[in-house]
Amino acid sequence: MSGEGAFIALMRALADGDAARGLTDDVAVLRGAGDLVLTTDSLVEGVHHLPEDPPESIGWKLAAVNLSDLAAKGAQPVGCLVNYALSGDSDWDAAFVRGLAKALKAFDMPVLGGDTVMMSKGAPRSYSLTAIGRAGENVPARGGAKPGDVLYVTGPVGDAGTGLDLLRAGQVTPADLIAAYRTPQPRMEQGLAFASFAHASMDISDGLLIDAARMAQASNVAITLYHVPLSSSFVALNGRSVEARVQAASAGDDYELLFAMPADFLPSVNSGLISIGKISSGLGLSLILDNAPVDLPDRLGWEHGAGPA
Amino acid sequence: MSGEGAFIALMRALADGDAARGLTDDVAVLRGAGDLVLTTDSLVEGVHHLPEDPPESIGWKLAAVNLSDLAAKGAQPVGCLVNYALSGDSDWDAAFVRGLAKALKAFDMPVLGGDTVMMSKGAPRSYSLTAIGRAGENVPARGGAKPGDVLYVTGPVGDAGTGLDLLRAGQVTPADLIAAYRTPQPRMEQGLAFASFAHASMDISDGLLIDAARMAQASNVAITLYHVPLSSSFVALNGRSVEARVQAASAGDDYELLFAMPADFLPSVNSGLISIGKISSGLGLSLILDNAPVDLPDRLGWEHGAGPA
Repeated sequence: MSGEGAFIALMRALADGDAARGLTDDVAVLRGAGDLVLTTDSLVEGVHHLPEDPPESIGWKLAAVNLSDLAAKGAQPVGCLVNYALSGDSDWDAAFVRGLAKALKAFDMPVLGGDTVMMSKGAPRSYSLTAIGRAGENVPARGGAKPGDVLYVTGPVGDAGTGLDLLRAGQVTPADLIAAYRTPQPRMEQGLAFASFAHASMDISDGLLIDAARMAQASNVAITLYHVPLSSSFVALNGRSVEARVQAASAGDDYELLFAMPADFLPSVNSGLISIGKISSGLGLSLILDNAPVDLPDRLGWEHGAGPA
Repeated sequence: MSGEGAFIALMRALADGDAARGLTDDVAVLRGAGDLVLTTDSLVEGVHHLPEDPPESIGWKLAAVNLSDLAAKGAQPVGCLVNYALSGDSDWDAAFVRGLAKALKAFDMPVLGGDTVMMSKGAPRSYSLTAIGRAGENVPARGGAKPGDVLYVTGPVGDAGTGLDLLRAGQVTPADLIAAYRTPQPRMEQGLAFASFAHASMDISDGLLIDAARMAQASNVAITLYHVPLSSSFVALNGRSVEARVQAASAGDDYELLFAMPADFLPSVNSGLISIGKISSGLGLSLILDNAPVDLPDRLGWEHGAGPA
């Protein structure tokens, strides 16, 4: 079987038989689609992942970064289309599909269709995934935050950036920091539970600071961050100085969700939501740590096109 | 403005304001989507187009090859998502968008979302488009052809392949053959008019012979082709010998539609449909030209991954 034939056979095991037509036709057919949320993200070798990252983790990450966008909007996964450039190494491709399959099964997102192409030898690997989700009644935008809202995040930041730094330095532990970079966990459960209550919502894949600044700009409000939540692994390695917290908040590749919630929203204790800031009238982003204003760094996070999906 | 900012500003002019959220959010929201047809195709420089092809034509072609798949299924375009690797040359990118815009406007397919990435210098350009169409009641598959059906095609074949041969030989005329390769016309009108009557339907982007063989295989029937329609430009250059017709039928990059119609379907004179074959019980493809059986060539057309989208 050709490299492509073998690849498609592997993908077929991930397909929704009805809508995907078994991946034997040129199109997928989605009946009674209702209200949909659509998103697409690409990963490029050397830009969004290290060339030596295990292919399983790259397949996982391609699904995870798109699932994270669905989660931020409170959308239930319906299916996805995958654009894949065959690497010329069928073992590598098969490992990529294994990782992709793990994420798609974990979050119940079948493959509906796709396209494979052959790249010339030596070209960087690249892959795109277009995810389709079932929308709830309210699909919060970036731009809906209102003065008086409280800003929440679903977990600590900075772990993935530290994981990337460790890998670049040739280290492969601590495992949880490496995993935060290679196999991020989309916050689907919290997205489905809370996004519909949010005035504004997005994931913070480019970094907490830059994405909070984008929410402020899109909403035409001022955002003040007064807390940067850190994991114990992050603190064990980097401490929790102001500098360490600024580093965590601008590192990027975190797939936590950022919610601007009305003031009367009260998260339950086990919601996992962490209050990190407040919204007021005005413009822009400011940072207050340990009760003192902190200058924002020149680089707030990844600019699109250059970094995380 | 950064290369990416400029690119997104150009794309914004092609966006459906409501569903695309002005391309200012991370997702698109499609309300009341109903029954959808989904398809995706990628183009890669050096594989699906020549490095020296004008960027306008590549933008057009990316839309056209996907619109062709919607047309084959009788689906009305709803919108699309575009994955674009910035080339580092903003004039080139802008010209690409101009060509894309022409096709999207001609066929009423707004942009709903997308993703831009930055490739390393020297990497081949690549682009993907995911097209979403409104399905009719019947969405014909490849695999529905039945013994007794008549096979129709929407136009002549071989022009694009000849255009590619001419360009490779350094020639840029005849203009219509070059245009057939660079700016193919998706047969949307005929797809919307006739696909719902078809037992089986697909475009013949990989070549008439290989795609007819695929229809035969998927439908578990035998297909006999007895006519290979040629354009006058093709005949003027290549003649109409059996060899020329076999060449035309295996060249690929034609975006005509192939319909297996029930025997009682009678196309009107101005339908543009050309009867080229018949379906019978049995298996496989055979070719009869000038009343004599013709051996099939070793290469029937493009294998997926290696050629046209």
